[in-house]
Amino acid sequence: MREVAIIGIGQTPVGEHWDKGLRELALEALEAALRDAGVERVDALLVGNMLSGQIEAQEHLGALVADFAGMHGVEAVKVEAACASGAAALRLGYAMVAGGLADRVAVVGVEKMTDASGEQITAALATAADAEYEAVQGLTFTALNALLMRRYMHEHGYRREDFAPFSINAHRNAVHNPYAMLRFPITAEAFASARMIADPITLLDASPVCDGAAAVILCPAEEARAFQERPVRIRASAVATDTVALHDRRDPLWLEAVALSAHRAFQQAGVGPEDIDFFELHDAFTIMAALSLEACGFAPRGRGVALALEGAIFREGQLPIATMGGLKARGHPVGATGLYQIVEAVLQLRGQAGPNQIPHARLGMTQNIGGTGATVITHILEAMD
Amino acid sequence: MREVAIIGIGQTPVGEHWDKGLRELALEALEAALRDAGVERVDALLVGNMLSGQIEAQEHLGALVADFAGMHGVEAVKVEAACASGAAALRLGYAMVAGGLADRVAVVGVEKMTDASGEQITAALATAADAEYEAVQGLTFTALNALLMRRYMHEHGYRREDFAPFSINAHRNAVHNPYAMLRFPITAEAFASARMIADPITLLDASPVCDGAAAVILCPAEEARAFQERPVRIRASAVATDTVALHDRRDPLWLEAVALSAHRAFQQAGVGPEDIDFFELHDAFTIMAALSLEACGFAPRGRGVALALEGAIFREGQLPIATMGGLKARGHPVGATGLYQIVEAVLQLRGQAGPNQIPHARLGMTQNIGGTGATVITHILEAMD
Repeated sequence: MREVAIIGIGQTPVGEHWDKGLRELALEALEAALRDAGVERVDALLVGNMLSGQIEAQEHLGALVADFAGMHGVEAVKVEAACASGAAALRLGYAMVAGGLADRVAVVGVEKMTDASGEQITAALATAADAEYEAVQGLTFTALNALLMRRYMHEHGYRREDFAPFSINAHRNAVHNPYAMLRFPITAEAFASARMIADPITLLDASPVCDGAAAVILCPAEEARAFQERPVRIRASAVATDTVALHDRRDPLWLEAVALSAHRAFQQAGVGPEDIDFFELHDAFTIMAALSLEACGFAPRGRGVALALEGAIFREGQLPIATMGGLKARGHPVGATGLYQIVEAVLQLRGQAGPNQIPHARLGMTQNIGGTGATVITHILEAMD
Repeated sequence: MREVAIIGIGQTPVGEHWDKGLRELALEALEAALRDAGVERVDALLVGNMLSGQIEAQEHLGALVADFAGMHGVEAVKVEAACASGAAALRLGYAMVAGGLADRVAVVGVEKMTDASGEQITAALATAADAEYEAVQGLTFTALNALLMRRYMHEHGYRREDFAPFSINAHRNAVHNPYAMLRFPITAEAFASARMIADPITLLDASPVCDGAAAVILCPAEEARAFQERPVRIRASAVATDTVALHDRRDPLWLEAVALSAHRAFQQAGVGPEDIDFFELHDAFTIMAALSLEACGFAPRGRGVALALEGAIFREGQLPIATMGGLKARGHPVGATGLYQIVEAVLQLRGQAGPNQIPHARLGMTQNIGGTGATVITHILEAMD
């Protein structure tokens, strides 16, 4: 297998793009990535998306984006793994380059959520859960996460306010990210008094509904320097799954697929949690951030929130997370999120993260989660010397 | 790159499965394929599906099928390319084995269409077309194919009845396929007087709405004999795309992506149209069969229907097609179709096609089409000596 490098990145601002469709968003990110890499043609295009069939009455995004991008004839398909669709597309793009099936691959994540009503989008997002055993009971995605958060608080003795650092950190970092949706800081007081959505989850625990697209260009690592001064190597790419329904898990507070996916990634890269300089995790809800930190091995069981309270997750801390705003404040256009994480990690590893730069960042980890931990995709990226 | 072999196949009968959900159908095919290969665990699972989000309120099929199959922790994602979703999943499974990322891969195509009303399914299938420029005009998928058929008749001087051999051949072959949906022969008279759907397409030009699942197990060709007495080698796997909207094509009667995908497949395999013993083509509508034969190089331009009228497409002919009933009579559960084609080709190459056996079949070709030719995926399979 060949080593794979990221030689181009692109993203649209995350927000409510009333004036743009799926194809326009995808193209904006894709063109930026191609320009960044100095590449005009690719051998294959993989599109990560979850909701276009339900919300935009448009499937077949592989061909649609290829067509709109003028990539006549190119191999193109869509990949879906609920909110982990973006990283799932990257994983298969990585496989094609690593395996020698393609030399230049474009991977785009795109989602347009704001054309739907609140009720429609809530129902559409619930298709990430088990339709026949969870959604049919009226369980929304936020409600599932609320169950997890309530249980976690009960089990480990935390108060709702203890989750504030996750949200404060994300909002603080989003201020300096021109592509982030919610570019304002929040206070602990604001967090404590935020509007309740699904007890104990408030508006400030949850990531926003939004539109956006992000893209990367891949090539074999040995060719990377010809295109990009500061290429980034993909040191690991690992997917793991767990039961879709929460109630089927022996221990709902232990995200087995997070543990497995991270373990596989650490093994592939030959590194451990202590080697990671920053972690773009899947903070769709604050509880997911806490559980991920634990199952990845960054914090002992029940200490994910403690790690945040100790300040380790902030830019100056031991393990900065959500360094460009995370899902919480950059925004969470579901099928695109996995690629936003990658684009942001590349910015850090290139030293282009502006005021959010993590000093001496060499090794970054990203983790994209589908459902309540049913699909988990971990990548470890490294700055190439 | 490693050579890849198919060591196990499985399928459910195609039909109206009121008593089974998506996961039950997928599992039935998957378990049959695993049993056939004598394999218990795989490294990765790829699921081809188009409509589950829209019709079953269930996305996230990779994790769902892995979960239901008891494949705890396994890498799993869904792949979508409209009606070519099944072959798209195979293509990526092939890439993972060929590239050395996995040694055992399961690929399942599954679709459940009959839980929806006729109007719902028509709208859902139209998401394979361009939502903003085609579907929004009220163009259904059948209507798009009717435009093609009308133009073809005008251009090349055929009558509606001239398309009958495609349908007659498919129905004749389905009679002996225990997994086919429409297991009855039809006559030229029945074809001529069939109920009009979208002029000039009648009920007997079109494939039925139905449910089903099909699966294959892949491994490196050099290991295949350890699992399967009669393994089948994947000699070529090629994807090409074209504009999604029909009106964007210079010549709507020339399926550019069919030509490109077939050309790439022939090149990979180092063979030409004359070497192919049988062809499982995408006869969702009779016009698609005719246009595919032409763009693949099996018939000159405008002579696809003539080829059928001459009898070449029948079991005894020069280029048998739809040997187990095709989309027309085996049925077209859209996201599963690409894998039904593969399973049937493997049966032919193993000499297990019963009364439908093509004598001395050594090299078979399959072609799965998404939209009106926007995504085309061609595989060439060979019996291993």
